[in-house]
Amino acid sequence: MSRIITLLTDFGERDGYVAAMKGVILNIAPTATLVDITHEIGPQDIKDAAFVIDSAFSYFPSGTVHVIVVDPGVGSRRRAVLVRTPGHYFLAPDTGLLSYVLARWLPTKKPGRAGETSNIHIPHDSPIEAYSLTNRRYFLPSVSQTFHGRDLFSPVAAHLSTGVMPEEMGERINSLVAFDMPAPELKGDLILGQVIHVDRFGNLITNIFPERTEGEIKEVRIGPRTVAGLSRSYAEGGELLAIAGSSGRLEIAAKNASAAALLGLGVGAEIRVVIAAR
Amino acid sequence: MSRIITLLTDFGERDGYVAAMKGVILNIAPTATLVDITHEIGPQDIKDAAFVIDSAFSYFPSGTVHVIVVDPGVGSRRRAVLVRTPGHYFLAPDTGLLSYVLARWLPTKKPGRAGETSNIHIPHDSPIEAYSLTNRRYFLPSVSQTFHGRDLFSPVAAHLSTGVMPEEMGERINSLVAFDMPAPELKGDLILGQVIHVDRFGNLITNIFPERTEGEIKEVRIGPRTVAGLSRSYAEGGELLAIAGSSGRLEIAAKNASAAALLGLGVGAEIRVVIAAR
Amino acid sequence: MSRIITLLTDFGERDGYVAAMKGVILNIAPTATLVDITHEIGPQDIKDAAFVIDSAFSYFPSGTVHVIVVDPGVGSRRRAVLVRTPGHYFLAPDTGLLSYVLARWLPTKKPGRAGETSNIHIPHDSPIEAYSLTNRRYFLPSVSQTFHGRDLFSPVAAHLSTGVMPEEMGERINSLVAFDMPAPELKGDLILGQVIHVDRFGNLITNIFPERTEGEIKEVRIGPRTVAGLSRSYAEGGELLAIAGSSGRLEIAAKNASAAALLGLGVGAEIRVVIAAR
Repeated sequence: MSRIITLLTDFGERDGYVAAMKGVILNIAPTATLVDITHEIGPQDIKDAAFVIDSAFSYFPSGTVHVIVVDPGVGSRRRAVLVRTPGHYFLAPDTGLLSYVLARWLPTKKPGRAGETSNIHIPHDSPIEAYSLTNRRYFLPSVSQTFHGRDLFSPVAAHLSTGVMPEEMGERINSLVAFDMPAPELKGDLILGQVIHVDRFGNLITNIFPERTEGEIKEVRIGPRTVAGLSRSYAEGGELLAIAGSSGRLEIAAKNASAAALLGLGVGAEIRVVIAAR
Repeated sequence: MSRIITLLTDFGERDGYVAAMKGVILNIAPTATLVDITHEIGPQDIKDAAFVIDSAFSYFPSGTVHVIVVDPGVGSRRRAVLVRTPGHYFLAPDTGLLSYVLARWLPTKKPGRAGETSNIHIPHDSPIEAYSLTNRRYFLPSVSQTFHGRDLFSPVAAHLSTGVMPEEMGERINSLVAFDMPAPELKGDLILGQVIHVDRFGNLITNIFPERTEGEIKEVRIGPRTVAGLSRSYAEGGELLAIAGSSGRLEIAAKNASAAALLGLGVGAEIRVVIAAR
Repeated sequence: MSRIITLLTDFGERDGYVAAMKGVILNIAPTATLVDITHEIGPQDIKDAAFVIDSAFSYFPSGTVHVIVVDPGVGSRRRAVLVRTPGHYFLAPDTGLLSYVLARWLPTKKPGRAGETSNIHIPHDSPIEAYSLTNRRYFLPSVSQTFHGRDLFSPVAAHLSTGVMPEEMGERINSLVAFDMPAPELKGDLILGQVIHVDRFGNLITNIFPERTEGEIKEVRIGPRTVAGLSRSYAEGGELLAIAGSSGRLEIAAKNASAAALLGLGVGAEIRVVIAAR
């Protein structure tokens, strides 16, 4: 069984918060392999955390436990959940952090902009299983009001990695909170999409997958700019270029520069793709 | 025996300094588990480093070796020390970096603001043992003037984790440098405390422990603002709230925002807590 | 055989890019020890990456695999290479990232400022071996146009760490790209050098090695300032000081402050050292 536990939080790296989580885990599971996904999620930015875990988790071995703690509602009535997908375990507050991950197996939501959260149903025949983490036996003896990452999620992750069954962690549940996924809309020869993540390089990453479009991409319009067709590498093309990025998503990039800074655009910006019938 | 070695420095993550330390350790102790506490301590900020190591170390397994290198006096006459507490080893320049840790076992200092450092005595019957790291056999063959983290503390940590006894590392000493701890003062129904750390979220963390106060907390005053009573979660309460944080300390937090930015306050800011007799 | 793999990139720590690389590696080499050198190299700053890997790699155990991915030309015709030095393996785009490392074994370039890259020849009798990574068997099944760090370098590193021979990874090559190294010039009793790296503390690190100078260092001139002789520690000397730093290079440092900010200088700034004949 895999002993990898990944951690994704908005705790930053200045304080001892992440280290305390690791200490708790290593106390219970001394041979666990700990991998940081990131701790630089913007404070309370659940949607960005949901994107980042989705971009990384599938590269880890089967059996990996992913702990995601961006938790403005810590200490309130939001549930703490364990979600099992084919191959991976996820531990997180039930606030939409798994929206992108779940969309791989559960029906996607109506088109439109990312908005409020709602409960999505998990059918009986779904490959997804979910549990509400209620068995205090797997928490730290004393659970603070402000740091469930350390007191609840870390010990549960450690116990899970040592072989405790999800069924022992709490009761099975048949719904999870997810936010409305911003799906692209098709209008004639136009695909209307939006920017859902800006990476470190200032690349604008969108909700459009070039491989899934019905026709060839002729033109990409963003802000005041129009880019002709898709480039095959960052080095090819002009100052601004459109490319199918590392997660298959359409990205707008600037050559050796930040497209976000160049265009003054960020998450939520509209993108229009002109396609030619194949 | 535990093979965990934690690292806390002000080296940042842009350079190869921390990596060089890890390389040195893995050369000597190839199976050590390395955990970063943080490397984002402000340059030369010994007091903040002292706070952060204290907030994290106790979650690690017994036998863990903690290396703390915030070392503006590297190459000068300051001592390099090994401190053994019940369960943990600490390696650091002897400049006050262990002040908060030591205060758990050694008599606390007089009330007042954190000020200059002084030598504190370690009684014979103390559970604390300290050593001056003088045995060059456990250093790198060549010790630079500017990087004892790599050339002295890392190899000593590695040797310690492989079972070398503290006694072999240098001579036993009976005093350590600590800075005056800012203890809260009780004046009638007021507790006067101060902010001792600001975390990534802008939470203002103080030197007051609500559990230890003699009466119920009725009101918390900071800067121009007054907060009524304690909240039980960040999600509960108004724009600004007071809460017993993850280390048991009174924190001032802002809902989904930075209390530090909202109030324009930071380390050293005064806080007044009004208590009611129980 | 060592199972350490180090990673150095310009990917930052906000996205899931580095984590995806680690997931890929752990899928192939579950017991690998992963060490981050840094991921905070400035976007596309190949020269700084070349400096940082050179400052850290030699502290790792023999057999360590170093993966360096600062790759603005990803997806273009630049080669991906494996370089074997006595004791270490390096995987990187062939764009000059190994310039400082290679200069330890291959003839240094003509004096002058760091400039364009050129091909340097590897003689038959060199201790350096280089390979072009062309065997797709060791890549991920699908290689993206934008993320060879994940799809090519990570799986190759993992296979290398499990014992696959370099010869199987691709064909032997006898040249590598390097940029002109900025070597110091001697003019009478003056050594003309330059700043090649600014570290987290604002220390200005130069291309001059005090131990190798022909005479004693009397004076160091940088910008409008003159510093008399070398200090023996950061704590000794005035507001501004010159010192032989942790890599043996002459550094300009400011006491508990940033010399870079104090002087308003950075990489490329000229430094003049006045020496006295010995």
